[in-house]
Amino acid sequence: MTFEYKQLYNFCLSVFTQIGCSEADAVTASTVLLSADLRGVDSHGIARLSGYVRLWQAGRINPKPNVKIIHETPSTATVDGDGGLGLVVAPVAMQIAIDKSTNVGTGWVSVQHSNHFGIAGHHAMKALDKDMIGIAMTNASPLVAPTFSKDRLLGTNPIAVAIPANEEPAFVADFATTTAANGKLEILQRKNLDAPIGWIQDADGNNTQNANALKSGGALLPLGGDREHSSHKGYCLGAIVDIFSAVLSGANYGPWVPPFVSFLAPPANPVGNGIGHFFGAMRVDAFRPADDFKNHMDNWIRTFRNANPVDINQKVIIPGDPEREFEAERITQGIPLLKPVIDDLEILGKQFGVKL
Amino acid sequence: MTFEYKQLYNFCLSVFTQIGCSEADAVTASTVLLSADLRGVDSHGIARLSGYVRLWQAGRINPKPNVKIIHETPSTATVDGDGGLGLVVAPVAMQIAIDKSTNVGTGWVSVQHSNHFGIAGHHAMKALDKDMIGIAMTNASPLVAPTFSKDRLLGTNPIAVAIPANEEPAFVADFATTTAANGKLEILQRKNLDAPIGWIQDADGNNTQNANALKSGGALLPLGGDREHSSHKGYCLGAIVDIFSAVLSGANYGPWVPPFVSFLAPPANPVGNGIGHFFGAMRVDAFRPADDFKNHMDNWIRTFRNANPVDINQKVIIPGDPEREFEAERITQGIPLLKPVIDDLEILGKQFGVKL
Repeated sequence: MTFEYKQLYNFCLSVFTQIGCSEADAVTASTVLLSADLRGVDSHGIARLSGYVRLWQAGRINPKPNVKIIHETPSTATVDGDGGLGLVVAPVAMQIAIDKSTNVGTGWVSVQHSNHFGIAGHHAMKALDKDMIGIAMTNASPLVAPTFSKDRLLGTNPIAVAIPANEEPAFVADFATTTAANGKLEILQRKNLDAPIGWIQDADGNNTQNANALKSGGALLPLGGDREHSSHKGYCLGAIVDIFSAVLSGANYGPWVPPFVSFLAPPANPVGNGIGHFFGAMRVDAFRPADDFKNHMDNWIRTFRNANPVDINQKVIIPGDPEREFEAERITQGIPLLKPVIDDLEILGKQFGVKL
Repeated sequence: MTFEYKQLYNFCLSVFTQIGCSEADAVTASTVLLSADLRGVDSHGIARLSGYVRLWQAGRINPKPNVKIIHETPSTATVDGDGGLGLVVAPVAMQIAIDKSTNVGTGWVSVQHSNHFGIAGHHAMKALDKDMIGIAMTNASPLVAPTFSKDRLLGTNPIAVAIPANEEPAFVADFATTTAANGKLEILQRKNLDAPIGWIQDADGNNTQNANALKSGGALLPLGGDREHSSHKGYCLGAIVDIFSAVLSGANYGPWVPPFVSFLAPPANPVGNGIGHFFGAMRVDAFRPADDFKNHMDNWIRTFRNANPVDINQKVIIPGDPEREFEAERITQGIPLLKPVIDDLEILGKQFGVKL
């Protein structure tokens, strides 16, 4: 079943307003959340709305946060999200990075005391129309074992980098630092299918194809999958995201990152506040004239897009192409939602007296 | 056979001086080059000395470069390496990043018209004793096919990130954005062994275990190996390194990056100057007090090092641990060199009237 963007937007807006968000924050949260649905990243969109509400019910979301800078230099800031929705905190922090970049060439913002911020790519892309490169990353609750370990110590810790071009659409990379995104695993679980070797390990650290292994103490594997295929590099990437997002800001890191689901309590003895994010903005004209840069990006993009394909039916993809195609389609033809998501939203709708 | 560090250092110093480097530049080049041998990255050390000399003979290295800033803001600079040895250009650029970080919290430097710069980790680590996070990356001549292509369009494009701790040794990640480093493939070639699936493809883009496939038009694969294991993420990483290093700076990117070997001519119709690098430095106290940060890094490192291992005999490795252990051993017990490397250096020694 397919829903118009505006319909889902109004639904989110009503729910966020009713949990106590200001009108401006409810607009921001709805826009950020639904950007995932528009871009085809269904796992991070409206399907999570009830999860945010349950966190609020558990007293773990502050709907009226005082998001503020607690430390800064001309090119950096540390931001306290005051326990707000990551969907609201992240745009404030990204704007600070953009403003600092305007002033001194680049801006870098580490955030503590936040929560899940939706899709990283949305935040990174905020830099594009200023002719800046945008960067966004976040840590997340631990589901990933570092190479050689049985323990879950890292989140899927995504990295997004958005780079403007001239005539070509922007380059927008946005990826979890694991072999497989958790969303893909959930699809296999629902369909009772096996996962490829290299995606997950069981509780003893052995390779497994059981897509449900995470539910019995298993772990997602870092990008690379195993040591022979350089999973230590995926582990390095996840670690860097964790450190930039949380050790720099004063958020929780590693196994202390609080879970998104409200039925799991946050770890005892936290090492910081909430979850952490990291944002960057770099003016391209801080390095060379913006038109030079963007024209060469056009050439870069065309060179890669027109490379010889292995299979004539599958051209090389420029990062961001698939999501942009989803967005163009869904903004006009609507957003498809799965039955369990619709059911979940209908329950939520009754609770808040709003129709889907 | 094993050689004392000082012995190899004096050998390099003499060769670099004789090709026309100033004494200071020869010291820098020798130090950077041999840091690879000390840290166990044998493929990037003195084994490459004769390669640099051949590039100089071919007129493709300027031994007396005027390395200069050609564009800057308070937090950024673009540096023209003037065709110098990357071993000499990179430390100048990294120092500019550090100086800017001292002034405004972070510093970011993109470099054009350079050459191979040795190991990325060495440059990133320059930031550590200033309580800064150091970042170094470089593009390189095309050996890697993006996901879905037969063409070699990216280099192995390494990323290094060095992060200071307090009592624990620093976290130092330094990795190629491919599944396997080219050096590992060379070892298999020498021993006539097969490569694991996921490292390389043949000229038609099919998986192959033939370690020599690169010599007949094949390509290295991005980190991830294949689409099912998210090679598109390795492709994104390699692309980001290429764009930050070369599209920002005005160097050659993608298939236009000139080869390191002197017997291959640089591509016709270059899109920029030489190869490109990108450096960053971030003062940790631009985000929170340095002691807080470094104490939490100690906790981060100990948490990961003491995680439950899958195999009791293989603990979790903190990035930088293996290289630091190599360095501690080799600085006292000497640097082992393979017979073909010694033979090569002896020929070079005769040419320059210097004994190994």
